[in-house]
Amino acid sequence: MESQRDRSNLKYFFEPASVAVFGSLREVFGLGYGMVRNLLQFGYSGKIYPVSPYHSEVMGRKAYSSVEEIADPIDAAIVITPPPTVPPIVEQCARKGVKAVIIISENFAEAGGKGVEYQQQLVEIVRRTDIRIIGPNTVGLFNAANGFLTNPYIIVHKKIRKGGIAYCSQTGYVGMAAQTWGDRIIPVSKVCDLGNKCDVDEADLLNYLADDPETKVVSMHIEDVRDGRRFMEAARKVVARKPLLLFKPGRSQEGARAAASHAGSLAGNEEVYDTAIRQVGAIRLHNWPEYWDMPRIFAYQSLPQGNRIAILTLAGGVGVAAVDTAIASGLSIARFSPATADKLRKIYPRLSNNPVDLGPILSVSDNNPFVVQEDVIAEVLNDANVDCAAISVYVGFEDLIAIIVEMFEHLKPRIAKPLALWIYGMQLPVLDEMYRQLEERGLPAYLDLESAVRALGIAARYSRIKAGHA
Amino acid sequence: MESQRDRSNLKYFFEPASVAVFGSLREVFGLGYGMVRNLLQFGYSGKIYPVSPYHSEVMGRKAYSSVEEIADPIDAAIVITPPPTVPPIVEQCARKGVKAVIIISENFAEAGGKGVEYQQQLVEIVRRTDIRIIGPNTVGLFNAANGFLTNPYIIVHKKIRKGGIAYCSQTGYVGMAAQTWGDRIIPVSKVCDLGNKCDVDEADLLNYLADDPETKVVSMHIEDVRDGRRFMEAARKVVARKPLLLFKPGRSQEGARAAASHAGSLAGNEEVYDTAIRQVGAIRLHNWPEYWDMPRIFAYQSLPQGNRIAILTLAGGVGVAAVDTAIASGLSIARFSPATADKLRKIYPRLSNNPVDLGPILSVSDNNPFVVQEDVIAEVLNDANVDCAAISVYVGFEDLIAIIVEMFEHLKPRIAKPLALWIYGMQLPVLDEMYRQLEERGLPAYLDLESAVRALGIAARYSRIKAGHA
Repeated sequence: MESQRDRSNLKYFFEPASVAVFGSLREVFGLGYGMVRNLLQFGYSGKIYPVSPYHSEVMGRKAYSSVEEIADPIDAAIVITPPPTVPPIVEQCARKGVKAVIIISENFAEAGGKGVEYQQQLVEIVRRTDIRIIGPNTVGLFNAANGFLTNPYIIVHKKIRKGGIAYCSQTGYVGMAAQTWGDRIIPVSKVCDLGNKCDVDEADLLNYLADDPETKVVSMHIEDVRDGRRFMEAARKVVARKPLLLFKPGRSQEGARAAASHAGSLAGNEEVYDTAIRQVGAIRLHNWPEYWDMPRIFAYQSLPQGNRIAILTLAGGVGVAAVDTAIASGLSIARFSPATADKLRKIYPRLSNNPVDLGPILSVSDNNPFVVQEDVIAEVLNDANVDCAAISVYVGFEDLIAIIVEMFEHLKPRIAKPLALWIYGMQLPVLDEMYRQLEERGLPAYLDLESAVRALGIAARYSRIKAGHA
Repeated sequence: MESQRDRSNLKYFFEPASVAVFGSLREVFGLGYGMVRNLLQFGYSGKIYPVSPYHSEVMGRKAYSSVEEIADPIDAAIVITPPPTVPPIVEQCARKGVKAVIIISENFAEAGGKGVEYQQQLVEIVRRTDIRIIGPNTVGLFNAANGFLTNPYIIVHKKIRKGGIAYCSQTGYVGMAAQTWGDRIIPVSKVCDLGNKCDVDEADLLNYLADDPETKVVSMHIEDVRDGRRFMEAARKVVARKPLLLFKPGRSQEGARAAASHAGSLAGNEEVYDTAIRQVGAIRLHNWPEYWDMPRIFAYQSLPQGNRIAILTLAGGVGVAAVDTAIASGLSIARFSPATADKLRKIYPRLSNNPVDLGPILSVSDNNPFVVQEDVIAEVLNDANVDCAAISVYVGFEDLIAIIVEMFEHLKPRIAKPLALWIYGMQLPVLDEMYRQLEERGLPAYLDLESAVRALGIAARYSRIKAGHA
């Protein structure tokens, strides 16, 4: 009996009006308890139905002995119980009409043996019912828009900044408990670990995120692809609307073997992936730091209209490496127009080179160096030959934070092209605070100049892809 | 009149018994004042002679109107005065018998015009006297052993940890005011920015550092090489005794052009550099973060005796990328001996794979997971098939710091092979504190797993170079 419902839409996973929680409700340490606590902490306003045969209440809420006991309809269920109990629970959920189940429990296909059987039972339930499953062996998902999350662990942060980045992966490393998103005020829309992918896969997720109005950029880690054609279709759909950054480790044969043993999956041919990723217009990332750091360049700003970068440093030696990175990232080094070069030379003789070494103007004693710096940045970015800029921000002391923020506030109405900032100085807490203050104002900040430049390279690349010139 | 003194030894630069300081002695803002303040702050115990025609004292110390006025012999001078005044000052210093001058002032050859002439005058003084010069256009140097530093800027940190890393460069970015060495407790021996290299060059510096007993590893940034043969000889001398890590940006044509315009120098052919670096047994670095982060792997530990790495993670998906990095870094993935594999399987069924996924044992409820983890790490590292290990350290909460430190304290007598640790979690201050506690105990800590693996790859590479198998 096939359903008429559109199974391809993941909205019941990310936007359920009600959720049943299956897992130990033991105070503090129980993982079901943890889920309820986290749902409340992150402001999920849907109905929560804790289910456990051993408890009658949790955090002042009624607990149910089984899903049948719940009278109201239920959109989603989160399950973290021992593997043998999971298929019967999912079966009950299907009967109850639950549409989406997130299975956090591990020891399924990835563990071999009995685990393979349990996972196969899940696949069969999906096949003959309307229910859909994310997982098993996952930390599940997070929706910043409604505070819905499936994480059972203790999360220190009380909130995560709402924003445009969707992080998708096939590892718990994408879970909130492993991330500094709170301290780094990363602007997140959705997070999803697909786990063993017994049902919902990367193509489903991409289709959902392509349509998601909150998501401005998708950063996706994949270990394998289930259905190449569906994946490429979904990826194309995303790329037509927003950038898709893909990190697929397992480039080395040994890495591919490790991937195969991790997710119980077969990682495919490396060249095939590389070609497919290029063909759909996705941008390939090379390591985890890029996976976390690169999307911010798309979170707040417009796209660069070309690939000509200006690099502003406070030490000439740093600029050289930044130029190498720019070239390797597909950028070209902007040549300032004669008019701009003249104006810059009037401020200080050697300022008309690119990279621009701002260092010397800091010692021009007559003027406030930040006023001079502001003018230089504005001149450079308003040159028609410049599409974007990477700017060094030296924060030697706490007092400079406010001064630098003020400079960028003044610059806001003066410039309309994307920037990436590199923050450096002596004290980690000062750098972290400077980072936060800039990010809060929609200025992507990086802790090394190479990353700032690379991010602009990726932005320019997507700009070309979108224009059809990639 | 040629001197009999060995001009090749830089000891008067790094170990002067007395120093004259030329620069504005205006309180707080004067750069000469800054130098005196910093020398005192970092515990330099040699004699300090501030020289200025405008002040008679600084910080309670007598100031001299000229170097001639000083009766005692002077080993070194630091100069930060306007370019036209610099050649006469150096001339006076030469007459006085000063052996080493560090010229911080900028606007010499790098600025063109008159600056080129002033620099030429310095070259001529060096040619006809015994004096030697570092700079101009440099932040100069720092010697952690005696607290001698030439930095005129405000340094927030009151001390820098003494240790084995020498950072050499051709940019002020290596200056203490631009670095988190204090908060990161980086173990530093010597720091030197060569600036415009009107006299002392990279070969001189390498010769000195090869002999320096405090220096265990040299991390060097170069933009150009003055004399290829001398450089290669000096580099070989270093490599025979300690690792030499070289970062030479300017790989791209555009980067090479930027380098040429920065230091007023001509950057050479990229392939020639690459071949030369390989021939001498130095290890090439690829970006600034590597320049700062990689040397720590040599600072506390023995070298790996082979290239077989064990990777211990808490999430399988993270291990795959680490394997890619290991292979790209010249490591091989260790295969555990049958005896080790058996022991690991007894602890938990799937633990005998490499990468080892420690995640599941954290939920083995009967035992303290850190005791189990300790045993796993010890078993793995004591396997004869394993030469080194990269280990994931998850620090979700502050309380875990002490528990993790205790685990590594217990491990210390149980293992004798090099480790690199990857720290992650939710809160930046907690990560930073965990980092410090591990580094204090001689355990190199990294904030991404790829860097930890790459560091071990570099250590194994030097081990092979030293054994003559590179």
